[in-house]
Amino acid sequence: MSSISTKPPSGTRDFLPADVRRRAWVVSRIRTAYEQHGFDPLETPTFERLDVLTGKYGEEGDQLLFRILKRRDALPALTPETPVDDLTDLGLRYDLTVPLARVVANYQAQLPRYFRRYQIQPVWRADRPQKGRFREFFQCDVDFTGTTSEVAEHSVISAVTDALAGLGFHDFTIRLNDRRVLAGLMEVAAVPSHQQVAVLTVIDKIDKIGVEGVTGELEALGLSADAISALHPALLDPAALAEVTDADGAQAVSQRRLDALAAAFTASPSSKGSETGADGVATLRALLSLVQSAPIAAGRVLLDPSLARGLSYYTGPIFEIAVAGLGGSMGGGGRYDGLVGMFRGQPVPAVGFSLGLERLLVVMEERQMFPPLPHAPDVLIARFDEASTTFALGAARVLRQAGLRVEVYPDLHKVGRQLQFADERGTPWVALCGERESRDGKLSLKHLASGNQEVVTPEEAAQRIQAATSIDSEPGR
Amino acid sequence: MSSISTKPPSGTRDFLPADVRRRAWVVSRIRTAYEQHGFDPLETPTFERLDVLTGKYGEEGDQLLFRILKRRDALPALTPETPVDDLTDLGLRYDLTVPLARVVANYQAQLPRYFRRYQIQPVWRADRPQKGRFREFFQCDVDFTGTTSEVAEHSVISAVTDALAGLGFHDFTIRLNDRRVLAGLMEVAAVPSHQQVAVLTVIDKIDKIGVEGVTGELEALGLSADAISALHPALLDPAALAEVTDADGAQAVSQRRLDALAAAFTASPSSKGSETGADGVATLRALLSLVQSAPIAAGRVLLDPSLARGLSYYTGPIFEIAVAGLGGSMGGGGRYDGLVGMFRGQPVPAVGFSLGLERLLVVMEERQMFPPLPHAPDVLIARFDEASTTFALGAARVLRQAGLRVEVYPDLHKVGRQLQFADERGTPWVALCGERESRDGKLSLKHLASGNQEVVTPEEAAQRIQAATSIDSEPGR
Repeated sequence: MSSISTKPPSGTRDFLPADVRRRAWVVSRIRTAYEQHGFDPLETPTFERLDVLTGKYGEEGDQLLFRILKRRDALPALTPETPVDDLTDLGLRYDLTVPLARVVANYQAQLPRYFRRYQIQPVWRADRPQKGRFREFFQCDVDFTGTTSEVAEHSVISAVTDALAGLGFHDFTIRLNDRRVLAGLMEVAAVPSHQQVAVLTVIDKIDKIGVEGVTGELEALGLSADAISALHPALLDPAALAEVTDADGAQAVSQRRLDALAAAFTASPSSKGSETGADGVATLRALLSLVQSAPIAAGRVLLDPSLARGLSYYTGPIFEIAVAGLGGSMGGGGRYDGLVGMFRGQPVPAVGFSLGLERLLVVMEERQMFPPLPHAPDVLIARFDEASTTFALGAARVLRQAGLRVEVYPDLHKVGRQLQFADERGTPWVALCGERESRDGKLSLKHLASGNQEVVTPEEAAQRIQAATSIDSEPGR
Repeated sequence: MSSISTKPPSGTRDFLPADVRRRAWVVSRIRTAYEQHGFDPLETPTFERLDVLTGKYGEEGDQLLFRILKRRDALPALTPETPVDDLTDLGLRYDLTVPLARVVANYQAQLPRYFRRYQIQPVWRADRPQKGRFREFFQCDVDFTGTTSEVAEHSVISAVTDALAGLGFHDFTIRLNDRRVLAGLMEVAAVPSHQQVAVLTVIDKIDKIGVEGVTGELEALGLSADAISALHPALLDPAALAEVTDADGAQAVSQRRLDALAAAFTASPSSKGSETGADGVATLRALLSLVQSAPIAAGRVLLDPSLARGLSYYTGPIFEIAVAGLGGSMGGGGRYDGLVGMFRGQPVPAVGFSLGLERLLVVMEERQMFPPLPHAPDVLIARFDEASTTFALGAARVLRQAGLRVEVYPDLHKVGRQLQFADERGTPWVALCGERESRDGKLSLKHLASGNQEVVTPEEAAQRIQAATSIDSEPGR
């Protein structure tokens, strides 16, 4: 008896067959929507050099990187002065955006001028595990590189919303903002740069703590009444969302909010305004106009000037997607025109959108949104005696050649036990092989649900099972 | 300009779209064969606790584990005496077998009595990278747990050979041996236990250095002439393989070799024989008899008493698969009846077979075994002016709803440049949108290869493109 724990490591999960099939079904739906938008698949290594990863995600991100210990022969001597950074030079993938930026920088000549890629792979964060949050989780990203046109934003939003619609989601809201709007607000409120992250973090909490809560925390940070007043266009009652029940409503609210922001960023006797903020407003106006004239699949797009998003590489529009009744977001993204340039002299503009697979799965599970998926073989081959093994294995082969999923019961247990195994597993048919069957070249084919049994050749058995199988016999992924 | 290298880390690769599609096609074929044999999918975390991984792969394996540095707050103080092992408690997955054994031990109540699982995931080894060998590579495993019946061996061999046949391979050989045969040979040759690994490693090289080379190296290890003579049944001229051109020939050679082994393991005046070796011979006889009566898909199974395989957890039959003309193996496996028991009081017998994805891909690339795979969108939407954007995005939507893969050119470049982009990408159709088209609600649909162009509604365009698309428009995976 061993004392080794057999649980998966903290924050990670084993996916048993039913889990894998459900996940694969969701991924295949997402992939189809992404492919239909012209995105091409990319996969990158599980780990990256640390200099690729660090400095891209903000300070918190750097701390949450899983780092790989150097090979023993490359480790420095350990002393109290040894910097921890000297023990490691690789880190696990933290998101799919930084690897994409590295790839765009590295393979420029081989990639199309506009590289639209999708990538569905796990990422890792050394976070404290908690309910519904994992250290290993999957992201489903689309990114559009090579243009500053809002067609790119529209394209990634359309791909993601089509993916959600394909999974059966019709009640989601995409919250939209622009990093330059946030910068503009910091400017007109004269928030000193060392306080901006803290102020934005407070504003981002408005849907949890409300306008009063945010105002209180901003005061606690030492912001003056004038400063807080200048932030007013971002301090919107989250309850106002309740009035927005359709795409047209969202457009109307968004337009009003844009107008308020535009006014705040216009120079006046009392304010020098903000050109950066005005640029953000202009982009958002163009993007909202596109969304209005060429609507997305389902759901609605709503301007939300309190949206901040954590990652430090965003430069323009940012978005986050939420499903009615679910706290937290299903994914998000934004424009990051500077990231590729961190790997290459000249910058390449880019915009991306990421769906979180596990959040989707949690909601789909709760709402029972999965179709029936194949979960057991079509038929079990059972034997009465050792002498029937050859015939049994040959029959299995014939049934497989007909496209069926076939398993052979390995041991010579009593027939009742073999039937019970099939029944518990959900296998609908059992083909019995004994002395008579082997001699005649026929199977006793039993349909477990009805109890019907008939003696047929393996070829006939294949036809019977195929005719009766209503669920598509394609594998789950 | 930055000095960060944009290459993937040493021993790893980026998979650009064409790579991903080819890999996905191969994986989907393998998955189909595995599913048709009744194997269910499993996925396990990228990293495991180190106590799960260490001591399972032999000393070399322990050294080749990628280890993850503990979180900063969990690191011990660094001193020259700090054991390196104290810096880390997680390691990257080294194979798919040990995680399976942990899963079988952990979820016993939820899994069927016979758990047949397949798993297609990457593994990592901190090996010195060299041509065709990677630090991150994919394994495609089938394992059958819960029985000692040779039906399990037959099942994993059949699943793997069906997978290879489904990919177009018809000229492979499965070399078969049994760990107990090797143990028996060590016994009859009286090789001291501290030398056995070295001796087996030498014998395993016989296909590279021949009988003479092996004999020389065994002498250098200090083995007596008597000992080397006792190893004779394993020291077979690899050139003899050339005479084996079909399954029947392989059976005949295998039987002769089994007889020689059986004789060596029988007690005689000059030898006390080996019961362990005789057990191995009996199992191999039964397995070869199954393979003869219920042949595998293609290729042949050949007894090879020099086959050793590196991993230390094997206990019974072992196998390795090689394709004619390719050095090295495409995969291998064997029975490991003790591994699950290392995680749980009572042992669970198990046998598995692993295909190496990258070796398959190298050979398939060389032999041009890939079918044409979709590699570009079906149609590019091009615009003449900003005013056409709404119509263009709406038309894209209609074409997608018809199941087509559609991309929109994002910028307002000259039409020639937009057409060139489609041409270079391999997109067969371009739908042009200008003032007239937007007004009339029609697209100018151009077929690039023929130059033909006609003015049609988006719905008509979808029909035209679908009718002309001979390649399946399903995504590559």
